[in-house]
Amino acid sequence: MTTPGLAGLPVVWSGDCLRHEPAGEVWLGVWEQGTEVPERATVLLSALTGAGATVTDARPHADDALLAVHDAELVEHLSAIWAQWEAGGYVSEYGRTRVVPYVFPTPGLLCGLPMRSPAATHGRAGKFCYDTMTLVGPGSWEAIRAAADAALTAADLVAAGTPLAYALCRPPGHHAGPAAYGGSCYLNNAAIAAQALRGSGAGRVAVIDIDAHHGNGTQAIFYERADIYYGSLHVDPGAGWFPHYVGYSSERGTGEGTGANRNLPLAPGTGDDAWLDAVEVLCGDVRERGADAVVVSLGVDAAAADPESPLQVTADGYRRAGQLIGALGPVVAVQEGGYDLPSLGGLVAAALSGLLDGRT
Amino acid sequence: MTTPGLAGLPVVWSGDCLRHEPAGEVWLGVWEQGTEVPERATVLLSALTGAGATVTDARPHADDALLAVHDAELVEHLSAIWAQWEAGGYVSEYGRTRVVPYVFPTPGLLCGLPMRSPAATHGRAGKFCYDTMTLVGPGSWEAIRAAADAALTAADLVAAGTPLAYALCRPPGHHAGPAAYGGSCYLNNAAIAAQALRGSGAGRVAVIDIDAHHGNGTQAIFYERADIYYGSLHVDPGAGWFPHYVGYSSERGTGEGTGANRNLPLAPGTGDDAWLDAVEVLCGDVRERGADAVVVSLGVDAAAADPESPLQVTADGYRRAGQLIGALGPVVAVQEGGYDLPSLGGLVAAALSGLLDGRT
Repeated sequence: MTTPGLAGLPVVWSGDCLRHEPAGEVWLGVWEQGTEVPERATVLLSALTGAGATVTDARPHADDALLAVHDAELVEHLSAIWAQWEAGGYVSEYGRTRVVPYVFPTPGLLCGLPMRSPAATHGRAGKFCYDTMTLVGPGSWEAIRAAADAALTAADLVAAGTPLAYALCRPPGHHAGPAAYGGSCYLNNAAIAAQALRGSGAGRVAVIDIDAHHGNGTQAIFYERADIYYGSLHVDPGAGWFPHYVGYSSERGTGEGTGANRNLPLAPGTGDDAWLDAVEVLCGDVRERGADAVVVSLGVDAAAADPESPLQVTADGYRRAGQLIGALGPVVAVQEGGYDLPSLGGLVAAALSGLLDGRT
Repeated sequence: MTTPGLAGLPVVWSGDCLRHEPAGEVWLGVWEQGTEVPERATVLLSALTGAGATVTDARPHADDALLAVHDAELVEHLSAIWAQWEAGGYVSEYGRTRVVPYVFPTPGLLCGLPMRSPAATHGRAGKFCYDTMTLVGPGSWEAIRAAADAALTAADLVAAGTPLAYALCRPPGHHAGPAAYGGSCYLNNAAIAAQALRGSGAGRVAVIDIDAHHGNGTQAIFYERADIYYGSLHVDPGAGWFPHYVGYSSERGTGEGTGANRNLPLAPGTGDDAWLDAVEVLCGDVRERGADAVVVSLGVDAAAADPESPLQVTADGYRRAGQLIGALGPVVAVQEGGYDLPSLGGLVAAALSGLLDGRT
């Protein structure tokens, strides 16, 4: 494909994002090669700089920005779990080279009793992680923290007047909720950026999530709030797709946030036309509600070649989505999913070029 | 050890209980050899018949007896999941030879949204199973159902006047709650038996759980009821043991069931004296409250040689526990855990001989 011109686009990045090496995932009891690999970031970095974008270092931010959207207990857990895992002998004694929980405090286990923080590291892990595919190992926390800093730095740029900034976040974030992580996500980079934009003076912020999967974490974080809209189009969880339990169209927010949450589940096989129609629905919401800044959860795993979803979006579809969203106002684009290494760079470049085009 | 005489003791058994072959368990992401193996049942059968006990066939019972303590949705799931797994290609296409969930609807995932039944078998599995170590394969349902029939048949015998009947249930049951399974348990054989005794005219029933682990499922099933007492002594979940989230001394029942639930968590390393003191506390509860029949959740994994707990109970301790409990009234003994194959038969025989001795 033609390389889109991304001259002047800031790509916020930290080399620490490469330090997270989950080395696989456990799916239905079997350890298999995962798709959320460090090469995703190097491929993206290469493609975007090749198209003229400028790399900007992620700057450290205080934990306050994380704690504005996540429970302190989750942040503490993520920062400490690997050291606890090593100290507990799970590597040396039991040969578990990554943190994977084995018991999960579902309603069927708790049966109405209050949630606890079990004493044993291996029992506690499932309180914070709701699946077996989101592994923690050496270097994970440094990458998780760096990805949040990248999102925050991009938000700083936009708050300072840059019309579009892209945060090359890895690991991704939109499945991470207030108090739990999963879906290859740990901290919610997009939510952290959206909240930071609010703190920088944006009265209303919209998060538009075009990743192929529902951003259950972002939804949960802002579900009761009117000041931060969340809209997502994604493969229908009711058709059998992750996150299975959340992401349905009936979820419209609650309390003051009623109406500020919109899910548009799409049938497997959906291609550009219907997908772009859904993008436009979300853009219509944002125009109607008003937004001083927009955060795009930029996953490109809705692409036809992607192994993680059955959607059939093309690079041109991503470009056109970018144009629609870019017209809404200043944009922080935060990298979410996208796992087909050969096409990944071109897809993100296409979306970003559309966002640049769309600026009014 | 001296073989205790078990002449006349009915051992209720179904050969179908051997058909459950989990072929391992997934602990912290790694498939390892499990301890809940069919050989447990054959070892027990051999030891008990060798000591003079009489094998009695488990008789089929209607599902009503299961549905009296379990949600219909759980029973339906357990009966259908293996066929769904095969039909879904999880074996043929993905090489998953046993049902193991990968995503779990914890409070951190649901974030206050209502529980759903996801369309995809692999997504729905975690609604009903709260861990990765309780596998389902071909033959599992037949064994699960047969174990429940064994417990029900033993309850029938006691309701008809037999002072002591033993159900050789495999798989075990006390971790299975109203709507979810885990901890190598699927249906709650002891709870099913206790409820059946109520239906047969026992006004008050007591369940005494001497398995090394807390019977969170039994507790949950009867937590709001005054007519069925639940008392358990077990290795302290607060010291790092399964089921981690439940089994604390503060859990005393609720509503009409307030006070009819008692947990006595024991420190790792606890031996006969303190363990028997705890058994006596539960027996005191039962004497005080009155019980027309007693169900013993007879796990022997508190034994020193057992790989699944750090307690240090001896065969003589089990015999003495049996004497204490046997003095309370008619007893249905239901097999729960116990995983050290060389000592397993002797430990259960010791407990049963004590129960026979204890009869007043």
